[in-house]
Amino acid sequence: MTLPPEPPMTDTAIDIPQIASRARAAARRVSRLDPQRRSERLRDMAAGVSDAVETILAANEQDCRDAQQAGVSAALLDRLRLDASRIESMAAGVETVAALPDRLGETISTYEHPAGMPIRRVRVPLGVILIIYESRPNVTADAAALCFKSGNAVILRGGSEAMRTNRAIRDAMLSRLADDDENGGGETLRDAIQLVPTTDRAAVEQLLTMDQDIDLVIPRGGEGLIRAVAKHSTIPVLKHYQGVCHVYVDRDADLDMARRIAVNAKCQRPGVCNAMETLLVHEQVADRFLPAVAESLREHGVELRGDERTGAIIPDALPAEEDDWSAEYLDLILAIRVVADCDEAIEHINRYGSRHSDAIVTADRDAADRFLQQVDSATVYVNASTRFTDGGEFGLGAEIGISTDKLHARGPCGIEALTTYKYIIDGDGQVRE
Amino acid sequence: MTLPPEPPMTDTAIDIPQIASRARAAARRVSRLDPQRRSERLRDMAAGVSDAVETILAANEQDCRDAQQAGVSAALLDRLRLDASRIESMAAGVETVAALPDRLGETISTYEHPAGMPIRRVRVPLGVILIIYESRPNVTADAAALCFKSGNAVILRGGSEAMRTNRAIRDAMLSRLADDDENGGGETLRDAIQLVPTTDRAAVEQLLTMDQDIDLVIPRGGEGLIRAVAKHSTIPVLKHYQGVCHVYVDRDADLDMARRIAVNAKCQRPGVCNAMETLLVHEQVADRFLPAVAESLREHGVELRGDERTGAIIPDALPAEEDDWSAEYLDLILAIRVVADCDEAIEHINRYGSRHSDAIVTADRDAADRFLQQVDSATVYVNASTRFTDGGEFGLGAEIGISTDKLHARGPCGIEALTTYKYIIDGDGQVRE
Repeated sequence: MTLPPEPPMTDTAIDIPQIASRARAAARRVSRLDPQRRSERLRDMAAGVSDAVETILAANEQDCRDAQQAGVSAALLDRLRLDASRIESMAAGVETVAALPDRLGETISTYEHPAGMPIRRVRVPLGVILIIYESRPNVTADAAALCFKSGNAVILRGGSEAMRTNRAIRDAMLSRLADDDENGGGETLRDAIQLVPTTDRAAVEQLLTMDQDIDLVIPRGGEGLIRAVAKHSTIPVLKHYQGVCHVYVDRDADLDMARRIAVNAKCQRPGVCNAMETLLVHEQVADRFLPAVAESLREHGVELRGDERTGAIIPDALPAEEDDWSAEYLDLILAIRVVADCDEAIEHINRYGSRHSDAIVTADRDAADRFLQQVDSATVYVNASTRFTDGGEFGLGAEIGISTDKLHARGPCGIEALTTYKYIIDGDGQVRE
Repeated sequence: MTLPPEPPMTDTAIDIPQIASRARAAARRVSRLDPQRRSERLRDMAAGVSDAVETILAANEQDCRDAQQAGVSAALLDRLRLDASRIESMAAGVETVAALPDRLGETISTYEHPAGMPIRRVRVPLGVILIIYESRPNVTADAAALCFKSGNAVILRGGSEAMRTNRAIRDAMLSRLADDDENGGGETLRDAIQLVPTTDRAAVEQLLTMDQDIDLVIPRGGEGLIRAVAKHSTIPVLKHYQGVCHVYVDRDADLDMARRIAVNAKCQRPGVCNAMETLLVHEQVADRFLPAVAESLREHGVELRGDERTGAIIPDALPAEEDDWSAEYLDLILAIRVVADCDEAIEHINRYGSRHSDAIVTADRDAADRFLQQVDSATVYVNASTRFTDGGEFGLGAEIGISTDKLHARGPCGIEALTTYKYIIDGDGQVRE
């Protein structure tokens, strides 16, 4: 079996509008598949990835060699490099998505119009999703699977250093689909998963203006990438800016529980968005709590930066500057502030936080409820670590990202975030009086 | 009772950031009211409007006189002018909103995390909504009531010609709230309904950048207004661009039903967004259908513009140009095209339509289902008039607008569109392993 020829991997002669309009046409075909057929195709894609472990590894080897020669950082190289087991997890991830319940066509609400016709609100795909991501090649498989499962076409634009790897993964996913002629003629589902064959900036900027054919852009990467995409895009963007997450230890907290939660939230995986960046402590427990938590955090190598009152209790803490309160360290650094009460903690979080994930530790139900109600964040916790904010942990099956926006989708986003709805009205001649 | 002083109605010395930050603080207070209290406050607002009929009429009389002197169009003057019964309907509208079911706090979904904590997705207010509208003063009361009911604060920016009227309506709504001291100190709920005390362009442009304190902008007016808002705003915008609505008469349509639907969709109220602008007719029924429908439409004074095949059947139709297929006439003008089949109709609608409301008339279930599935519009009808697309008709109780976007809210938008959700997790010490 041979795959159809594709545009060359150069920055010239790539027809960006054609990529978008072919995705639009493919999206219609994906949305018409019945749920079982869509799952089967996803299992074919998973099998395609498993078949192609050697090919993908070879492509990845080339990418890694080039990246190394170009002198990229060790961290980037680590994110880029695959091995057989990482590729098998990718395939398993696609299988997981295939097995998720199908959400398309579900009736969200119904209203019986007095003229005798039901008005149904029904879940439908968004259409075409553009994913712009950096070096992790597993996004290629994850994002393609989630978009396909939810009836959408996807246009993938990965990082330049992962170009060969991403292409090998995409080709592997499509390999068992290419002969599928069920849709007649040369039309297949291949265009539903497209990879932009260039990392030219002008090409991506052009894509970001194709608002007639692309319905949503999801940038996955650092804040700089997301701001640049939001700035250039005329298409709606699902944004994840920052995770400046807080744990607030209330007066009535179980202090041992508070210590365990704070250490977990900061140290279990400090480089991710749901890790704690600022610890807030009620003034009436600061004397007892801070020395204990500081000792545990120091054992994990955490650098502490505190306000004045914190410094008075744990003298080796560095003085925190104003910038520390809004810093997303993504590292073993923690800002600490002593607050007068729960209200001051809430105010601090709403002012300096990023509306991501924030926790209170308390045995006081009133304080807990006030915190849950008034902290304006996507995810709010009582007596648990912020580290749970994740599509898998939230039962979404898989995650296309975490939204710090309030509109459309908030917090961890799974299949539902890739859908919209339409109103369907079945009449028998009704007209408006 | 006297109302507190307000900034003067001049373009200088108006502190726009302060308007936004006071709205943010007020939004927190509105969201904390219990549902019953929120409804009571709305009934107070309705009563305040009823109390103030004379004051509102006097303010409106001044606005109308100035507008007339400024030589505004008769249509604008008609939209601007109130009478006692229009004001009473405004009050009744606020009562209706007060009586709607409260949606805040409802659990949208729950996931039982294996670590023994429920993860609940709960409906919450968006926060602060900015409404930018043109001359109809009833929007002041409608929008304020819907935003308040859904736990939000609202910043209203109406048209300059309606400034006195809008202020009188807003003051009337707040009149019974001003003495309410339940929230302690000088803090009341007044800031939850603010009117921008200027129609200066720079002020609105500044508001559109207050993305820390304003969560959503809803422009209500012509396409020019909406495009200008979308262009300047760094806040998400709920957009209603156009209503280029279609009725497609299929081969298997009941032609008499089709005629009644087409006449209703075009003529019952031609100036609104859910009126039909283009009629598509299957070629196998065009000979029989077009003369009959043309006669009925002509009786209503409709100007017909057809493609070549339409012209061959109804010779007095003017020839349609390419622009006619995407025209939103909002007038007694209709574009007509003969199509080969249902698929061509769907293709035409997806290409030229505005994703608003489109209908098929057919007795063929397969064609109906294909149309419902494949037409990418907010509202799709089988055998009914497009004129039903409306919040009231859809059982939403009231309408803040109709969205032609796909994200967040689509089609007629009621209270739900003014909400978002947050994840609430109640643990007892859970940390991530």
